[in-house]
Amino acid sequence: MQKFMNDNFLLKNETAVTLYHDYAKQMPIIDYHCHLSPKEIYENKTFKNITEIWLYGDHYKWRLMRSNGIEEEFITGSASDYEKFMAWARTVPMTIGNPLYNWTHLELQRFFGIYDLLNEESAPQIWEKVNALLNSEGFGARDFISKSNVKVVCTTDDPTDSLEYHLKLKQETNFAVKVLPSFRPDKALEINRDTFQQWTEMLQTVSGVSIDSYENFLDALESRVRFFDSVGCKVSDHAIDQMMYADTTKEEAAAIFKQALQGSKVSIEDEKKYKTFTYKFLGKLYSELGWAMQFHINALRNNNSRMFEAMGPDTGWDSINDESIAKPLSKLLNLIEQESGLPKTIIYSLNPNDNNTIASMIGNFQGGGIPGKIQFGTAWWFNDNKDGMIEQMKSLSNMGLFSRFIGMLTDSRSFLSYTRHEYFRRIVCSQIAEWVENGEVPDNIEFLGSIVQGICYQNAKEYFGFEL
Amino acid sequence: MQKFMNDNFLLKNETAVTLYHDYAKQMPIIDYHCHLSPKEIYENKTFKNITEIWLYGDHYKWRLMRSNGIEEEFITGSASDYEKFMAWARTVPMTIGNPLYNWTHLELQRFFGIYDLLNEESAPQIWEKVNALLNSEGFGARDFISKSNVKVVCTTDDPTDSLEYHLKLKQETNFAVKVLPSFRPDKALEINRDTFQQWTEMLQTVSGVSIDSYENFLDALESRVRFFDSVGCKVSDHAIDQMMYADTTKEEAAAIFKQALQGSKVSIEDEKKYKTFTYKFLGKLYSELGWAMQFHINALRNNNSRMFEAMGPDTGWDSINDESIAKPLSKLLNLIEQESGLPKTIIYSLNPNDNNTIASMIGNFQGGGIPGKIQFGTAWWFNDNKDGMIEQMKSLSNMGLFSRFIGMLTDSRSFLSYTRHEYFRRIVCSQIAEWVENGEVPDNIEFLGSIVQGICYQNAKEYFGFEL
Amino acid sequence: MQKFMNDNFLLKNETAVTLYHDYAKQMPIIDYHCHLSPKEIYENKTFKNITEIWLYGDHYKWRLMRSNGIEEEFITGSASDYEKFMAWARTVPMTIGNPLYNWTHLELQRFFGIYDLLNEESAPQIWEKVNALLNSEGFGARDFISKSNVKVVCTTDDPTDSLEYHLKLKQETNFAVKVLPSFRPDKALEINRDTFQQWTEMLQTVSGVSIDSYENFLDALESRVRFFDSVGCKVSDHAIDQMMYADTTKEEAAAIFKQALQGSKVSIEDEKKYKTFTYKFLGKLYSELGWAMQFHINALRNNNSRMFEAMGPDTGWDSINDESIAKPLSKLLNLIEQESGLPKTIIYSLNPNDNNTIASMIGNFQGGGIPGKIQFGTAWWFNDNKDGMIEQMKSLSNMGLFSRFIGMLTDSRSFLSYTRHEYFRRIVCSQIAEWVENGEVPDNIEFLGSIVQGICYQNAKEYFGFEL
Repeated sequence: MQKFMNDNFLLKNETAVTLYHDYAKQMPIIDYHCHLSPKEIYENKTFKNITEIWLYGDHYKWRLMRSNGIEEEFITGSASDYEKFMAWARTVPMTIGNPLYNWTHLELQRFFGIYDLLNEESAPQIWEKVNALLNSEGFGARDFISKSNVKVVCTTDDPTDSLEYHLKLKQETNFAVKVLPSFRPDKALEINRDTFQQWTEMLQTVSGVSIDSYENFLDALESRVRFFDSVGCKVSDHAIDQMMYADTTKEEAAAIFKQALQGSKVSIEDEKKYKTFTYKFLGKLYSELGWAMQFHINALRNNNSRMFEAMGPDTGWDSINDESIAKPLSKLLNLIEQESGLPKTIIYSLNPNDNNTIASMIGNFQGGGIPGKIQFGTAWWFNDNKDGMIEQMKSLSNMGLFSRFIGMLTDSRSFLSYTRHEYFRRIVCSQIAEWVENGEVPDNIEFLGSIVQGICYQNAKEYFGFEL
Repeated sequence: MQKFMNDNFLLKNETAVTLYHDYAKQMPIIDYHCHLSPKEIYENKTFKNITEIWLYGDHYKWRLMRSNGIEEEFITGSASDYEKFMAWARTVPMTIGNPLYNWTHLELQRFFGIYDLLNEESAPQIWEKVNALLNSEGFGARDFISKSNVKVVCTTDDPTDSLEYHLKLKQETNFAVKVLPSFRPDKALEINRDTFQQWTEMLQTVSGVSIDSYENFLDALESRVRFFDSVGCKVSDHAIDQMMYADTTKEEAAAIFKQALQGSKVSIEDEKKYKTFTYKFLGKLYSELGWAMQFHINALRNNNSRMFEAMGPDTGWDSINDESIAKPLSKLLNLIEQESGLPKTIIYSLNPNDNNTIASMIGNFQGGGIPGKIQFGTAWWFNDNKDGMIEQMKSLSNMGLFSRFIGMLTDSRSFLSYTRHEYFRRIVCSQIAEWVENGEVPDNIEFLGSIVQGICYQNAKEYFGFEL
Repeated sequence: MQKFMNDNFLLKNETAVTLYHDYAKQMPIIDYHCHLSPKEIYENKTFKNITEIWLYGDHYKWRLMRSNGIEEEFITGSASDYEKFMAWARTVPMTIGNPLYNWTHLELQRFFGIYDLLNEESAPQIWEKVNALLNSEGFGARDFISKSNVKVVCTTDDPTDSLEYHLKLKQETNFAVKVLPSFRPDKALEINRDTFQQWTEMLQTVSGVSIDSYENFLDALESRVRFFDSVGCKVSDHAIDQMMYADTTKEEAAAIFKQALQGSKVSIEDEKKYKTFTYKFLGKLYSELGWAMQFHINALRNNNSRMFEAMGPDTGWDSINDESIAKPLSKLLNLIEQESGLPKTIIYSLNPNDNNTIASMIGNFQGGGIPGKIQFGTAWWFNDNKDGMIEQMKSLSNMGLFSRFIGMLTDSRSFLSYTRHEYFRRIVCSQIAEWVENGEVPDNIEFLGSIVQGICYQNAKEYFGFEL
């Protein structure tokens, strides 16, 4: 039996141990998709206590606390930070089998040198110890990043963002990590949301392009793409909660845009047409600039309208959608491919039922001499756990090239989440080691080590073209 | 190698052995969803031979016999009981890999002390031995229940049922098992079925409420809910073969009801509206009474119309439906949550593709200080096997709290099915033990034992509020 | 640790080793579904080099080469055979985890006695060695088939095919393998494809039936079915990319046919009606003749329209569709069952999400005294790998009778693919052996050996009724 979360945690056999400790562990991290705040990085934000760094914004933990029968007061309510921490500590032992059980202890181990189990009894001591460290030198946002051997962070940014902190960080000589923006124009696509008109006004302001037609709306979007590119952006990101496609023309899309700009809701079919044309436009731009385009598909958000109204988005009321994706995804990719050649593209679905659909779909659009040009993105959100990762890796391996996988990202709002890369790497090493043990893959450690290092770091570096 | 179905059957390692034998085995059973007949329990029904207890109503066995090329005459036809038993015995060896292979031998072991393999050669002796036992003292319906250490049985009952036998069983002093009704108003919801008008008349008769409007139909339903509650009912159950939702008003629902009461079929959209409003009404009632509400989703029934016409429902012509559930399930839960707060809710789908959708969906509605208020129900029907259970447990663990799971039920028509709880418990212990072996969960047997006992018994006891 | 692809490759434990080496290995092969060319078999086609036999038509390899960043010139383009082979050799090490990594080495081992790993370094030597063998005696199409211990090959043939080479092969006295046609009338069903009118003319010509109505179209089809039957055909095959069903009458279907024959496109609903009636007609015929009917569901073809236009079908631009299948599949099977009794039926889906739907669906139509009459077909195409096979076997086992499974087919265009039967058999033996190790199945090797031999050979022989 393995001791709990020891050095060889998740490493199934000797091959896995060797691959992890001799090849994976030392590789730097490229976190090419996350939700960290560039402002907090720039300001090297510090944290007054463990509740602030762990529980202020972590809806993963909130959901488990709610499931454990904790009252909302102790989650997002008026209880004290200490009470909230104790409520989480009480919950932790009940989370066995959930990735948060392991993430929690990995974060305590790696960042705070604490190897105790977190529970109600150990909590007061851990509260003291972590808080003391958080209030000492070397526990700011930048420190967590640097200690984690991170080379690149790609944040997630609205096209109207000034990128002020990215620009400031570029000037910093004492912080070697590249902090780059990602272009996430969801509000440009979501023509039927209440945000559309106001957002378009902001786009007009920030771009300096007067927007009274679809034509100059696209001009304004393009100017923001080029601005992001000038700040080092290499990747866009799109939340496509429901995959969609509809044949259309620019004239149709322009008419639909006009209707929406004047404040009308448009039909679902028209929304699809508008989005289809706009994606085609953006895809061509991304392709020209050598960016990668990310699609995040099949999230079902804000299911609990009472709590959503009270708390807003990203507070733990989201789950997995289960709409078909194959046909519309195929058609949208094909449209962009025909128009301009697809940019590098990374596809994630929140529904693991889509794994094989995606793993087979990407094969339809590979080519042009770029290894792994179309990627099946790593297990996302609810799937960001051992089983979810293994499923994603198996689908990718069975239908494509695991060796060309660009690997892990945190997708996180927390500076402590870099341990998830360790968790992921251990699973990568175990997966390959299992093939070796079964005789499915030859026992050439050096070669396999190079594959592992590719998946941990090298593939992403080359794929995005980061100069490091 | 393990010997076939020995003491450590399904227990993967020492931790699993300890957890099962020291913690799980001795726990009583709460069978909170089954299809046993309260009349047969009351009358302590006995069985003239093994065919009667095993083969008269078990469509699981019938399907495998048909798959094995057995003629219908020897399944549900005119062949003698002995011939039918022999046909099943001939089939059993061909069922390796199917849960019935293990259930069959578990039932022979636990209830009849028979450790032989059932096949054509052993069958005549087993026929004699089991029949002799069945015709001796201590082999009645109540005996099987008592020997299995069952504390609570929740049967499945139509709202128009008089609950005569539940009431009589309450008076019994020599039978300590609680036999409680469950409220299953499918016929109230299925407005387009031929049964609707006649059923409504029965409801009128039994409730004493004259039904000429939706308003008094709901009154009559409510009176039955309150009657069931007075007899100890703690849980309702709904077959939602296709998950659905449509926005509506009471006025619309009332008009649709009226149309159906007059014998017209209503449109699919109207059926959805009628059901949506009626679920909202019932959900509020359940919530008020502290009941749990069960949804059984995505069954596709009566696929073979020739056989269905010859034999009726539940004779082995059902399979798995594959319709999307995320959006309508979210909307229906949200509607009830907004109206009155959801009751405790247990969601099952016959399609294991829905596992992750459900496991993530329940997190949207947890809260209010009830641990595991919204439950992902245990692997149902076609999934009631080792692989199906493990899949359900993994999804639940990865996205929620396995430790708060209320665990197993038989869903069975047979008094011998209590061994399925043993089968389930062995798998629960193995799942936890595997995490321990991997170093994912600490080796604290006492704590893990308490989790196991929770899933086996304690969680259900507290969840439903049974006084035991 | 197992050595790479040694004798016990994929065999997990001693039971698996015994089952494979003592029972599975020696069984002949019935390849009841493939895409081999009867002409090439008749002519005992030889191959000038390894590129011709491996890379000229293998879109599985092409897709992986594209994914590896190989330019199209070296895949399907103007590069020399040697350059193409080197491009594949360079790709092979990057395919670890993909079934092609194992298939590639199995083929080198079994057909050419090469136990080296294929990579850029070993490639020149392997090029020389294999080419020398290919240009020597005993490396023709028939030789590969004979050496693989194949007894029956069922090719895939259009109804308008003259079956010239099947007829010629029947006369051959020096080639004992049965090479039989399969009836694949996709072009008769695809009423909306551009091929429809031209194909109908060909049908008219070859059948000698003048086609001016649906009635005589069906007559012509029937005449081809009977002709195929006379040549030894035992099985039909249908690509149902999207499962569909619509209630209809012969009159409606006839009117739709007429419209299409005159060159009009018909509505999707009309297409469904036409197909439904035509399937009913064909199903009845198959049933009468004792044929088996194969459905291949949920492929999404020709996704990349630029490449499809350049290269045509089956060049590597296909992937998995994700449409619901339960209801239309149920209705179509039920319709045929009611009309005439279903023929033996084998159902495959390219989407493994359909596994449990299918595994439970087949149980609705079993019966009539034929063991495993309705079959869940083996893991198809993108699922033709260890994980996909295990998933299919688990679903089948949990919901039906694994012991009645008719097992593997190659579905291949290559004469070297018979090693996939070996790969499959090793997995079958390991699956059963795992149950034995767990104590779920008794350790009766002789009985289990008979099950293994059934799945490898005997079940298919009896199911199709081949006289061997």
